[in-house]
Amino acid sequence: LAPVMSGDMDKPLISHRLMDSDGSLAEAPTEAPKVGILGSGDFARSLAMRLVASGFSVVVGSRNPKRTAGLFPSTVQVTFQAEAVSSPEIVFVAVFREHYPSLCVLSDQLAGKILVDVSNPTEQEHLQHRQSNAEYLASLFPTCTVVKAFNVISAWSLQAGPRDGNRQVPICSNQREAKRTVSELVQAMGFSPVDMGSLVSAREVEAMPLRLLPGWKVPALLALGLFVCFYAYNFVRDVLHPYLHEGKNTFYRLPVSVVNMTLSCVAYVLLSLVYLPGVLAAALQLQRGTKYFRFPDWLDHWLQHRKQIGLMSFFCAALHALYSFCLPLRRSHRYDLLNLAVKQVLANKSPLWVEEDVWRLEIYLSMGVLALGTLSLLAVTSLPSIANSLNWREFSFVQSTLGFLALVLSTLHTLTCGWASAFKESSYKFYLPPTFTLTLLVPCVVILARGLFVLPCLSRRLAKIRRGWEKAGATRFPLCEDHTVAQKTSHV
Amino acid sequence: LAPVMSGDMDKPLISHRLMDSDGSLAEAPTEAPKVGILGSGDFARSLAMRLVASGFSVVVGSRNPKRTAGLFPSTVQVTFQAEAVSSPEIVFVAVFREHYPSLCVLSDQLAGKILVDVSNPTEQEHLQHRQSNAEYLASLFPTCTVVKAFNVISAWSLQAGPRDGNRQVPICSNQREAKRTVSELVQAMGFSPVDMGSLVSAREVEAMPLRLLPGWKVPALLALGLFVCFYAYNFVRDVLHPYLHEGKNTFYRLPVSVVNMTLSCVAYVLLSLVYLPGVLAAALQLQRGTKYFRFPDWLDHWLQHRKQIGLMSFFCAALHALYSFCLPLRRSHRYDLLNLAVKQVLANKSPLWVEEDVWRLEIYLSMGVLALGTLSLLAVTSLPSIANSLNWREFSFVQSTLGFLALVLSTLHTLTCGWASAFKESSYKFYLPPTFTLTLLVPCVVILARGLFVLPCLSRRLAKIRRGWEKAGATRFPLCEDHTVAQKTSHV
Amino acid sequence: LAPVMSGDMDKPLISHRLMDSDGSLAEAPTEAPKVGILGSGDFARSLAMRLVASGFSVVVGSRNPKRTAGLFPSTVQVTFQAEAVSSPEIVFVAVFREHYPSLCVLSDQLAGKILVDVSNPTEQEHLQHRQSNAEYLASLFPTCTVVKAFNVISAWSLQAGPRDGNRQVPICSNQREAKRTVSELVQAMGFSPVDMGSLVSAREVEAMPLRLLPGWKVPALLALGLFVCFYAYNFVRDVLHPYLHEGKNTFYRLPVSVVNMTLSCVAYVLLSLVYLPGVLAAALQLQRGTKYFRFPDWLDHWLQHRKQIGLMSFFCAALHALYSFCLPLRRSHRYDLLNLAVKQVLANKSPLWVEEDVWRLEIYLSMGVLALGTLSLLAVTSLPSIANSLNWREFSFVQSTLGFLALVLSTLHTLTCGWASAFKESSYKFYLPPTFTLTLLVPCVVILARGLFVLPCLSRRLAKIRRGWEKAGATRFPLCEDHTVAQKTSHV
Repeated sequence: LAPVMSGDMDKPLISHRLMDSDGSLAEAPTEAPKVGILGSGDFARSLAMRLVASGFSVVVGSRNPKRTAGLFPSTVQVTFQAEAVSSPEIVFVAVFREHYPSLCVLSDQLAGKILVDVSNPTEQEHLQHRQSNAEYLASLFPTCTVVKAFNVISAWSLQAGPRDGNRQVPICSNQREAKRTVSELVQAMGFSPVDMGSLVSAREVEAMPLRLLPGWKVPALLALGLFVCFYAYNFVRDVLHPYLHEGKNTFYRLPVSVVNMTLSCVAYVLLSLVYLPGVLAAALQLQRGTKYFRFPDWLDHWLQHRKQIGLMSFFCAALHALYSFCLPLRRSHRYDLLNLAVKQVLANKSPLWVEEDVWRLEIYLSMGVLALGTLSLLAVTSLPSIANSLNWREFSFVQSTLGFLALVLSTLHTLTCGWASAFKESSYKFYLPPTFTLTLLVPCVVILARGLFVLPCLSRRLAKIRRGWEKAGATRFPLCEDHTVAQKTSHV
Repeated sequence: LAPVMSGDMDKPLISHRLMDSDGSLAEAPTEAPKVGILGSGDFARSLAMRLVASGFSVVVGSRNPKRTAGLFPSTVQVTFQAEAVSSPEIVFVAVFREHYPSLCVLSDQLAGKILVDVSNPTEQEHLQHRQSNAEYLASLFPTCTVVKAFNVISAWSLQAGPRDGNRQVPICSNQREAKRTVSELVQAMGFSPVDMGSLVSAREVEAMPLRLLPGWKVPALLALGLFVCFYAYNFVRDVLHPYLHEGKNTFYRLPVSVVNMTLSCVAYVLLSLVYLPGVLAAALQLQRGTKYFRFPDWLDHWLQHRKQIGLMSFFCAALHALYSFCLPLRRSHRYDLLNLAVKQVLANKSPLWVEEDVWRLEIYLSMGVLALGTLSLLAVTSLPSIANSLNWREFSFVQSTLGFLALVLSTLHTLTCGWASAFKESSYKFYLPPTFTLTLLVPCVVILARGLFVLPCLSRRLAKIRRGWEKAGATRFPLCEDHTVAQKTSHV
Repeated sequence: LAPVMSGDMDKPLISHRLMDSDGSLAEAPTEAPKVGILGSGDFARSLAMRLVASGFSVVVGSRNPKRTAGLFPSTVQVTFQAEAVSSPEIVFVAVFREHYPSLCVLSDQLAGKILVDVSNPTEQEHLQHRQSNAEYLASLFPTCTVVKAFNVISAWSLQAGPRDGNRQVPICSNQREAKRTVSELVQAMGFSPVDMGSLVSAREVEAMPLRLLPGWKVPALLALGLFVCFYAYNFVRDVLHPYLHEGKNTFYRLPVSVVNMTLSCVAYVLLSLVYLPGVLAAALQLQRGTKYFRFPDWLDHWLQHRKQIGLMSFFCAALHALYSFCLPLRRSHRYDLLNLAVKQVLANKSPLWVEEDVWRLEIYLSMGVLALGTLSLLAVTSLPSIANSLNWREFSFVQSTLGFLALVLSTLHTLTCGWASAFKESSYKFYLPPTFTLTLLVPCVVILARGLFVLPCLSRRLAKIRRGWEKAGATRFPLCEDHTVAQKTSHV
């Protein structure tokens, strides 16, 4: 198969002129291959416009041609269904599944032709029917060859022309020749055909446009879970305990103060979870003495979701910063300050100053800002258009070196924040350790492990393994399903 | 979804080597098709380099070849104008409009050839001449075929190679064959030809590079208008009124405090204006009982500018956040606090604490941060490289669901801010209601309407209409000029 | 040469199915051109998968075919090295440099074939060997034609498909025919071949993936240098001087307060350095009376790094904002405020209010926020995906007009901050002028110069020069190495 070449005809502003112009492109239809379309919805219309713009002659079949004609550009021929499907070899079926049976009257005219099923079930329909729309169509028209295609392309993309992200058109069919014909059509329209095999795959193809950010589900749930846990923990320690033991009502801290503390914990733990799987993978490689083995599935998935976990961490860190900056805007802050001033005046009047506290907060804040600044660089370089312009070494420098720096900075941020309280008995409310000591666990493991991997004995062995060296007797396993895992871990 | 493609032939770093290398690419010229260029400016040079890199043989015509030759790579032949235009079939005219008449001496040599007009008038020239440069050139050379092309491409893009955004080359000419020849040339150079019809369109094509963010004009003016109105309103209520009635000089609040309050109003109203047209469109569809009709022009334009209005809203909201964080940095804030402390000490010394005020501000701040966080997700997903990697369902989830969530959060933010004052007589200065009650108007209409559309009776009918169902007797209108409006509104 | 238009077979999710499907794509190999691969590492495997997906028949040579076979998809033939290299005309050498000699046993079978060297040296190896890997391979196999290619593409890109940033494949070889054959192969795989000349260039090609953000080195060092200088200066003035002269210990200001002040200076000076080279270039053009001359190298490089310097400036400005918002969160701030309140109560009790100070800070803060807001627009439009969607006029409007506005706003920000102190003797600690007066130097020069260029006499002359006009007797110089400099400066 030749690579897909394609001239991006995009920008709606320009491309919709194609069919009205008097130029060569628009005039091609007279000798152009003929394509039929059944249906007159948005998709049918966009399809017709794109086909005309790509040099095809289009005939649309409608039950009420007179009424429908006005909806299509004048270069498109609109006629009765039976007449429309008589001459073209390829007929697009752009009607809803529930109307498929109504097309059965055309069985005779359609015999031997290629039917292209472009339909997209709703989520509900997809769950309800075990048979894909394309297979259902095939069962209704046994004398036709059904090809599933174009369902991932929206009517808008068809009109506006293919763009970066959505130019791939998965195709499947049981007949190879039909698949090739439709592939050529797809290419001529500026998209890239991708062979998905036989019609059994249609169900999978139809599920594609139903995907809702699949890569984000686990990281989002993880962040949510951590948030709930830490929020409850902070609530018990910082609100419930003072209330029960000292009778102090600090419930007003729930919306800002506790959320803020919780967000910092979530961001910090998530960041360490970005680097933990790499450490585990390296440890596994060192232990087995080879890189030619499959990681366990959970580790594999974890490695693949690091980008999303990292962005989640950045989002929480940014919210934490916003909440922190809101602290002095609170009314409670103002009251506290005023009451403290009054108390100070009444009690002892010597200037108030605790050098240690002052230094602790200055360093704490500075580390926090620097950690957020570093994280924001990571976030920016994970934008597709920037990531694509970096070579492997640059990408790995930013994601691995700068990312690790951010982890170290936030560890210092956390340590200066809570160091003093970790060793006071009064901090262990209900015998629960301060939140910050809990959050330090995973990050410290990661930092220690990476410290270990820098030792010459381990780093040399690891480098050798990553160049393909294997320990005598190391057991290899085929990696077919994901060859890149080994590579992906190489920037541990 | 995987990204993709643009035939970015070359980073400048690499591409400028093409003409110096000893390889096959650079050597092709011997048998390559010959192309002529008249002119020796930046554009002529970049054009020559790109043509050579694309395998053409280039001959440049100059009035002073000796002097000009040094400006071109050695593979380009530089000679006298008359000689240069004698052999090639296609001659690029890369000189300024005012020099066109000086080329008339070449009329005989140019007879029957294709002249490609690549010129770009300045804005002033464009307004001054009613005739496009290309038509002017055609009138000077009646025996030649003039084709307008490449004017939208900058010299820099020619050298650096085509990129995503700017690979389209609109072409127009009165002769179809010439247009086809130039189209092939355009393709061979890695760009995408777009047929714009006959030479009459040249004026329009020449206006393209003069466009200055056309999609942003209306949203920017809208934001500015709202800013001015709200600023005046806030000034009257918060600065003028205290001055006239209480003799309190609070003019120092103009640069930060009043601007901050105004920005929050503008951001909030703009956000609601993003969702209002969708609600109106749905209401129209419900009323007419069909989706096959044209929206009124104003609604149409409004629907198309939602993205820009939304980004404007985000920008104002972000500035509002920055201004808010600046509040405690003001000197006036410090003085107020100190004076309050002194007053507190002198007057009554019982601790100051108003539970309701404390809670109100905590919730107010928390809602604000969350609304800004949600809006920032919307802003990020409207970056082209990210928007292109989402499927329709994902895009609509983020823009519609998350966007509506942001609207609800900012409504809560606004309500907690001003609820108490809405029912005090003292808030109605000069009988003007508090600003926040004004801003609530549109957003509440939008939220209520979307609440209504969720009712089973309406939501079912709307779903049916969007699948193509029509009420008996619904009047259809052709939609040719913008078929996608109906689709665009489908994520109300 | 045909244009490179791109094959995007990407999406790992889909593309790895190609070789398992029963469709036409996967079946092509039977009649497809045969390609050999020596090696079984990550890169060899990814290469094999991509070649199969692009319609080639692949045979892999291994010393232990049985063991290796499991690592490749079933459509790839894995056999002994000698057998593998016997039939294909092109053999990829995907082994490390140190194993090249071990391939010498295959010399006879390889005679006359094309060897493609895909290897990438590590930085250490690159420095250690003066001879490139490809030249070394050529010296070992004098009867073969060695072509260097694909080394810039990572195994991951091979599998995932070509993307925007990394689709160029530099190729070099001493034999033109071999280079052409490999170029076609590269195109068929969806990448863009770039001719780099003869095999001598291999060393340069091998250095490409070792590049580490070369465009950022100078700007980053510049920012770092400025930071160190200003930090030291601020330290001496604001911490050391009070300590030595007044015995006041303010060392606690080092982590936040001094860093914050320093960052603002760095951001401001960097921003002015973005616009200085444009001013210098314009001055040079005016002086020489022509645009046809080469700028001195330093100016040239400076012009090319403006984007990075600008982004550096934005990054520092953003950090400055974050640090500023942290100021009221500091413990020292709280202590200062409390102590001041106490002092106020004890001393005189009249309300504290200095109108001038209040106004100064309000304007100072407002200008700062607006400058940061404007800078953020510049930063956003320099994202590749957005920059590519703007035409030249729009880009220049944002980068030049808005950028200059940001410079003016930050000058006002700086002036309101320090104006009062500039004229007090007490501000000249150790006879050092206040930091802000130092930073004003460059920006004021830039603003004044641009003010001058607006004068009709100069602006007209400059416009003429930029349209190609030359002063009588102006000396031209060839510009071959960087033709675009003149253009790049045109938005001064």
